[in-house]
Amino acid sequence: MENFSFCNPVRVEFGKDKEKNIGKYMSEFEAKKALIIYGSNRIKNSGLFDVVISSLKENGIEFTVCGGVKSNPVLSKVKEGIEIAKKYGADSILAVGGGSVLDSAKAISVGACYDGDVWDFFLGKKPVKALKIFDIITLAATGSEMNSGAVITNEDTLQKYSCISPVMFPKVSVINPELQKSVSREYLVYSASDVIAHSIEAYFTAKNRPNLINLQVEANIKTIMRTTEILLDKPDDYNARAEFAWAATMALNGLTHLGLGGYSFPNHMIEHAMSAVSDCPHGAGLSVIMPAWMMWYRDNNIEQFKRFAYEIFGLNEAKDGILALKKWFEKIGTPTKLSELKIEGEILDEVKNVAINSTKKYGVTEFYSKKVIDEIFELAK
Amino acid sequence: MENFSFCNPVRVEFGKDKEKNIGKYMSEFEAKKALIIYGSNRIKNSGLFDVVISSLKENGIEFTVCGGVKSNPVLSKVKEGIEIAKKYGADSILAVGGGSVLDSAKAISVGACYDGDVWDFFLGKKPVKALKIFDIITLAATGSEMNSGAVITNEDTLQKYSCISPVMFPKVSVINPELQKSVSREYLVYSASDVIAHSIEAYFTAKNRPNLINLQVEANIKTIMRTTEILLDKPDDYNARAEFAWAATMALNGLTHLGLGGYSFPNHMIEHAMSAVSDCPHGAGLSVIMPAWMMWYRDNNIEQFKRFAYEIFGLNEAKDGILALKKWFEKIGTPTKLSELKIEGEILDEVKNVAINSTKKYGVTEFYSKKVIDEIFELAK
Repeated sequence: MENFSFCNPVRVEFGKDKEKNIGKYMSEFEAKKALIIYGSNRIKNSGLFDVVISSLKENGIEFTVCGGVKSNPVLSKVKEGIEIAKKYGADSILAVGGGSVLDSAKAISVGACYDGDVWDFFLGKKPVKALKIFDIITLAATGSEMNSGAVITNEDTLQKYSCISPVMFPKVSVINPELQKSVSREYLVYSASDVIAHSIEAYFTAKNRPNLINLQVEANIKTIMRTTEILLDKPDDYNARAEFAWAATMALNGLTHLGLGGYSFPNHMIEHAMSAVSDCPHGAGLSVIMPAWMMWYRDNNIEQFKRFAYEIFGLNEAKDGILALKKWFEKIGTPTKLSELKIEGEILDEVKNVAINSTKKYGVTEFYSKKVIDEIFELAK
Repeated sequence: MENFSFCNPVRVEFGKDKEKNIGKYMSEFEAKKALIIYGSNRIKNSGLFDVVISSLKENGIEFTVCGGVKSNPVLSKVKEGIEIAKKYGADSILAVGGGSVLDSAKAISVGACYDGDVWDFFLGKKPVKALKIFDIITLAATGSEMNSGAVITNEDTLQKYSCISPVMFPKVSVINPELQKSVSREYLVYSASDVIAHSIEAYFTAKNRPNLINLQVEANIKTIMRTTEILLDKPDDYNARAEFAWAATMALNGLTHLGLGGYSFPNHMIEHAMSAVSDCPHGAGLSVIMPAWMMWYRDNNIEQFKRFAYEIFGLNEAKDGILALKKWFEKIGTPTKLSELKIEGEILDEVKNVAINSTKKYGVTEFYSKKVIDEIFELAK
């Protein structure tokens, strides 16, 4: 195991009805003026929005709102939120929605405490201050509810970049699996793909692989696969929904990335280029690129690929494990081919250019040259 | 999964040479006057003490010391430490040693901020304030470095009780596996037993068993068993030492106890009576009582015992899994019979009385009557 430093101070309030206490949780952190960030009107139609504002009012917390955050959240919306937060004098941000909403909220929270362009933080500048961040997460996938990262797309430059800083840890994250029942079948399987991607990136790319960490990663993957299948059949299964949600959180809260030394997120790097250019759903892009990347990369770490095949699918050959994952993606109904995402021709060329350009930003240790990117995308056709 | 609330703000600094920065870590939390708690002179002879005080001096942190903490740490020593801390005006406590030293430090940290008797906190009163707690952990077992609990023995009443409070989370815990190399063979196997006990208590007693949590618990048990065997053969194996240490931390930092609803620690309750009366090593007491308790309890949760047998030992029958664990304890050289601990005759009678009396304190859901305690101890003979 390599040396590491770990601290994750997020308080998780997990379970039924927890959202009803959001005002109480926020007032424990002395929040008084909140900006509520959300996506579509789904949260208003479901009644969740009313629950939230009742709780804020009961606890004497004033608020204003900024809705309309979309999947693959964009910088322009973040800037709109920052302006509202500054004008309103917000001391806190409450995200009500999925990872895109929370990531936007995190970016707004640092942007509201900064005079310059918030994009600076996505190009490497370290934020030093943020408004207090709270969230009610309505879609389990990104793990953003228990980490300090945010991913935002700059529409002008087509850069889909991340910023990671301890100031962006949420104070309290509410995870009520019941609120996640309304997630569509499509987004459930995209989410499964996203969590599996979070799990495998370091699992395959890290040179140091403590067995304990391997077991923890495999526990998350097995849980996601098992519960996805249950939920496709029975969307109301609370325990399956709960385990799916908690595995998603555990997959990217830092614990499964400890002691590995260097590792990288090549699938995310490539997929971010895909969704930045084509606006495909992140999880759908990942289920296309993962089997291709795994085929391309497997000889770099053949023993770990064999382990994956055996532990996850009971198979002996590295290649068979990758094919089994692809087949499983097909079974649950998430795309495995570029054509399903309509990433072809000129769009594909642009995606490749963006992917190559973002190599350095993502700290991918092996340089992903044009030749390499061509090879990987060829395998994804 | 049952509802839960989780927050673990401990910062872990894990790996080689980390203890050299202890002064820096402490000054990040504005520590200026520290009370150093330690056990035997082992830390002086090894040079660790000098490393620590150099780092404190470099960072302008004044200090005083209180040594002599013993295994199964006692209230009188805690009171001595409290008096020193108060007189000295300490703002922080630095524990350098194993779980007994750290638990004493935690108790001192709350006692130093309280005018009454610190034992009040072990009888149910909630502490509201504590000195800042830091530690360099030299023996992996208790998990105290990443939780908010402490266990202290009141020698007058023979109560070995715990206190759990968020104010007792360490600010920074240093875990350098190299410092744990000097742990004796005996204490290594007692530690293995302790971590396995932390793992199985809720695993068997909780009514709600999310599969993800089961997998995480099993990952810790498998890691402890694998690395113990390596370390008995090669005490210098750094990676094995590191995984052992991290599994010990993960086994009791709260994560494997989430979503279970009610559960209890009957093995700990019974063992605490054993070590309070006889002063046997905690881990040695546990390796005696665990197989006995498991045999006695198994029909209450037969499926989970079957799962344990299969996942840990590849066996199909509940009983065989328990026997395999007992055999493994014998193989590594930790006791499995009361006679090995010299707990017999009048001592055994006293142990039984103390165990029955502490039932309520430990929140053991099934009442452990005299008849039950007799039955369990009979199985431990």
